[in-house]
Amino acid sequence: MLRLASATPPTWAAAAIAHMDEVLLDHAHCEKKAASTAINLIFRYPEYPQLVTPLSALAREELEHFERVVELMRSRSLEFKRQRPSPYAGRLLEIVRKEEPQRMVDLLICCALIEARSCERMKLLSETLDVGDLQTLYADLLASEARHHTTYIDLARQTGVVDEVALEHRVREIANHEAAVIADASELPRLHT
Amino acid sequence: MLRLASATPPTWAAAAIAHMDEVLLDHAHCEKKAASTAINLIFRYPEYPQLVTPLSALAREELEHFERVVELMRSRSLEFKRQRPSPYAGRLLEIVRKEEPQRMVDLLICCALIEARSCERMKLLSETLDVGDLQTLYADLLASEARHHTTYIDLARQTGVVDEVALEHRVREIANHEAAVIADASELPRLHT
Repeated sequence: MLRLASATPPTWAAAAIAHMDEVLLDHAHCEKKAASTAINLIFRYPEYPQLVTPLSALAREELEHFERVVELMRSRSLEFKRQRPSPYAGRLLEIVRKEEPQRMVDLLICCALIEARSCERMKLLSETLDVGDLQTLYADLLASEARHHTTYIDLARQTGVVDEVALEHRVREIANHEAAVIADASELPRLHT
Repeated sequence: MLRLASATPPTWAAAAIAHMDEVLLDHAHCEKKAASTAINLIFRYPEYPQLVTPLSALAREELEHFERVVELMRSRSLEFKRQRPSPYAGRLLEIVRKEEPQRMVDLLICCALIEARSCERMKLLSETLDVGDLQTLYADLLASEARHHTTYIDLARQTGVVDEVALEHRVREIANHEAAVIADASELPRLHT
């Protein structure tokens, strides 16, 4: 149950695969950014001890994926390097409320939806790619992305800041915003465009 | 071979152990900060692909240590929370040159020396603490700190920016600065005071 408010058109996967080198590099950056975001949440919210260990474990897993993607890139003679990111995450985060603790809840929900969209996109890639190391990568990783989606929703719940009804309502609101952002995304070959 | 320019007085360990709860919390923050610093170096220097995988693996290990310290704190009914940090790292980094690639080399050497000082301090703690879970923690972790020290020096070498003589010279300069900073450190009960 990924809580996304829209489905990616099936044509997306073929377009991404036509620029697979760029998408792989973007994927590496996304895993690194995901690790960094989880650690930043520990820095920002130490007064919520229930977040600490799950976010640290999640960051470690994102770094493992980062290393795996970089290794696969090297096996294809591609090197990790700078890349213009998709504007997706920045636009998604525009919905985050400024005041705490609503800001924290919104950040956790945004992270959950980024993981959900990654999972959906990786599933499309794994279903469209020919059998091989790349197809195996996406088939392996999509389950982790789904698990991370659930982790972030659970963490938002465990902060105790919102009750179940308010949480579901806010997830729906942010999911609608996410669907608008991804529909309007740039044409760059990225995981989230 | 830790390349430190000074030895911590043996009296330090007893003073730290007298405030062990505060030192443990500081230690948790240091592990988290070390992970974050390693990831930030990947963000900042993607054009040095030889840094990418070792720094990501190092960050994962720091997060494992962070989780282990937090778990041990919880077994003592201590919770992870905010804490005024030691001014040590900030003062150490004042020696970093502004221009690249010298800035990168200096940052890697500073990281190496922080790991070295942590290793030296953890060794003192492991030799002074009574046998128990805390003593085991420091006896276990000091080997990793020594290994991370070597990793950072190796990475500075592998950037190819400095030759062996220049590297050794700069390590000695920064080690002298580090010795002055730690000698002048605040009286807060911290790993690096």
